[in-house]
Amino acid sequence: MKVAVLGCGSVGSQVVRLLLEQADDLEARTGARVELAGVAVRRIDAPRDVDVPPGLLTTDAAGLVARDDVDLVVEVIGGIEPARALILSALEHGKSVVTANKALLAEDGPTLFEAADKNERDLYYEAAVAGAIPILRPLRESLAGDRVTRVLGIVNGTTNFILDKMDSSGAGFNEALEEAQELGYAEADPTADVEGFDAAAKAAILASLAFHTRVTAADVHREGISEVTAADVASARDMDSVVKLLAIAELRDDAVAVRVHPAMIPRSHPLASVREAYNAVFVESEAAGQLMFYGPGAGGAPTASAVLGDLVTVARNRLAGTRGAGESAYADRRLLPMGETVTRYHVAIDVDDRAGVLAAVATAFADHGVSIQTVRQEGRGADAQLVVVSHAATDAQLSATVAALREMDIVREVTSVMRVEGGEE
Amino acid sequence: MKVAVLGCGSVGSQVVRLLLEQADDLEARTGARVELAGVAVRRIDAPRDVDVPPGLLTTDAAGLVARDDVDLVVEVIGGIEPARALILSALEHGKSVVTANKALLAEDGPTLFEAADKNERDLYYEAAVAGAIPILRPLRESLAGDRVTRVLGIVNGTTNFILDKMDSSGAGFNEALEEAQELGYAEADPTADVEGFDAAAKAAILASLAFHTRVTAADVHREGISEVTAADVASARDMDSVVKLLAIAELRDDAVAVRVHPAMIPRSHPLASVREAYNAVFVESEAAGQLMFYGPGAGGAPTASAVLGDLVTVARNRLAGTRGAGESAYADRRLLPMGETVTRYHVAIDVDDRAGVLAAVATAFADHGVSIQTVRQEGRGADAQLVVVSHAATDAQLSATVAALREMDIVREVTSVMRVEGGEE
Repeated sequence: MKVAVLGCGSVGSQVVRLLLEQADDLEARTGARVELAGVAVRRIDAPRDVDVPPGLLTTDAAGLVARDDVDLVVEVIGGIEPARALILSALEHGKSVVTANKALLAEDGPTLFEAADKNERDLYYEAAVAGAIPILRPLRESLAGDRVTRVLGIVNGTTNFILDKMDSSGAGFNEALEEAQELGYAEADPTADVEGFDAAAKAAILASLAFHTRVTAADVHREGISEVTAADVASARDMDSVVKLLAIAELRDDAVAVRVHPAMIPRSHPLASVREAYNAVFVESEAAGQLMFYGPGAGGAPTASAVLGDLVTVARNRLAGTRGAGESAYADRRLLPMGETVTRYHVAIDVDDRAGVLAAVATAFADHGVSIQTVRQEGRGADAQLVVVSHAATDAQLSATVAALREMDIVREVTSVMRVEGGEE
Repeated sequence: MKVAVLGCGSVGSQVVRLLLEQADDLEARTGARVELAGVAVRRIDAPRDVDVPPGLLTTDAAGLVARDDVDLVVEVIGGIEPARALILSALEHGKSVVTANKALLAEDGPTLFEAADKNERDLYYEAAVAGAIPILRPLRESLAGDRVTRVLGIVNGTTNFILDKMDSSGAGFNEALEEAQELGYAEADPTADVEGFDAAAKAAILASLAFHTRVTAADVHREGISEVTAADVASARDMDSVVKLLAIAELRDDAVAVRVHPAMIPRSHPLASVREAYNAVFVESEAAGQLMFYGPGAGGAPTASAVLGDLVTVARNRLAGTRGAGESAYADRRLLPMGETVTRYHVAIDVDDRAGVLAAVATAFADHGVSIQTVRQEGRGADAQLVVVSHAATDAQLSATVAALREMDIVREVTSVMRVEGGEE
């Protein structure tokens, strides 16, 4: 069983290392010797973390995936091109493919799945979501006889590190981001993480699998954490809650709602205890109830572990002359627009300190059909503030309420608006 | 695809319900209509939680598993016989089998696996460990390219409920057990749970999969929680730790150590936050790092979810004319006797309040080659107590130390001995 590895960065070098070091175990577990056929890189002489055996490095990725002696292709280049073209070529040349490429899968998964189907080859991608955490296989297989109703994920380590730091130290966003950058948890340009693009790609993949419906990154409502303030985090703490960036995919009247945004969740929720750069995916299903999968969501070795797990399955399938389940999009459910999505809001409002303020604010909520769960009055005089937590309502109703509040004379400023998840509606 | 269900108790009735209710989804996910062929029960007219379609109930389980039109057999009777004979007969008659029977697998798994191999049929058993939590499939497949080094599991809901209650309320064991019985979390005869037999069976199954080595329940060192006192739990709290009944399987010098016993773990450990009757399995592996799988470990519907997940995989395999990976015992590692197992002890000792006591106790540890991590002196006069936490040593060294302490004049009583897990050695 000959394996071509495309890319030899932090993940690729660990894939190569494991392939070489665990060769005997891999042979015992797959039933065939798994050999490295070649490693495609941009520059042969670039420094890397693994000693690739001489003669195996090549800059001709297109040639490598087409080589007759290659059975399996591992794509860990990332990005859209040339990854897409190489995966499609590999499938067309009859190779089975394992990829960790969340961006590509979330943008154009169906093209890849159709190519895999047409060529009757496997396309596995456990490593694309939440690194080492086995979450796609449980969704595809373990829960295949159940009905998943909701997936709540902390699927981006950078933002979890920042929010955890803000919670534990009271730091503001910029300060926490700087610390994350110093420690290597955030990149110099943190946009993809901080603005939720990375999490949105993973949300699309999770939603597709959980609900047997095609969902792309463009379908995901996305808000990042750069607007989250120390005051928001403190306000969450007052409610015995914590702010997390959540990737949420849920069934609502048989439609699928998918979104990424910061939200307050109760500290008693299993996701609240996910610290630092760890990831976790919380799954609710009809029969199984509540499950959580926790672990490192990124990093070379953890991601390589997920790639190798797929590689063993794909190799076994190939030896048995079969393939795993392909794309499952049979349910083809409607995607719910964000405005129809049902959620709860936490709203903090600086108000004039005079009689009737609470009644006026409550009326604004009621006028938009939003029921109030709790309201707390804080401060006096110039510091007078109302903190309102609503019951569940559509996002359209809730955002219209906030817009109306902003127009009211007695409202000096709406200082914080954040969704509330993980509790009772 | 015709399914025979053996047993219609709390799990079986949920399996039948899901098979009937989710028939369309199951068809879409497997590629064939999955139909209920029959349900074997002891008494046709017993009350049950599901309306089994007329004519499908039978008391002739042996006849049902041999019927030509049956493709798949689900065994949810439990216990050793007749479950074993029925599973073996089903395999010999060419059926694929899904079972939730941990006791049978832990006692005599190899006989079943060999029968599956010989007859080239699938034998799946995700539901046998930790109910709905997908843990066997991740170990078998997702981590197949990695090297698992340790599995720490809270795999018995009854004991976790009792210990959690003791921790949160300060109750003693008997009081907490009574509450568990009143709430239905413990049986009238709680021996199998409380004395660790149930957890030991699951530990054997987890160890076999994690380390590719045959392990049976008889190989598992087992201690239950009936000796755990309110004082032990309070002592753990003083160390910012919590007492949990752990199923532990670990590699040590390429040998496998498997045991079940109560242990103190730090409150910062992910397993510490597993409350009430929930289960969780914490896995450490070389490349993936630390993973945790959390969810309901028992109950009819959660267990049925795991059974149905296996059923979909087994049905897909059968349609594709293939089978999943069978038993993997190639590594055939040595099993480490408990005396050679490396662990840490927490020891509380009532001592005479006089000079030199600490030195004498420290000497007893040193004489047995055990290094002390921390020692705390508490109380004065008749209440004088030493609390010692050791560094890692073999269980033989540690138990010899405790025996020696008991012989010392200055030691009035060794009041608590408990292992410490989940931290640095």
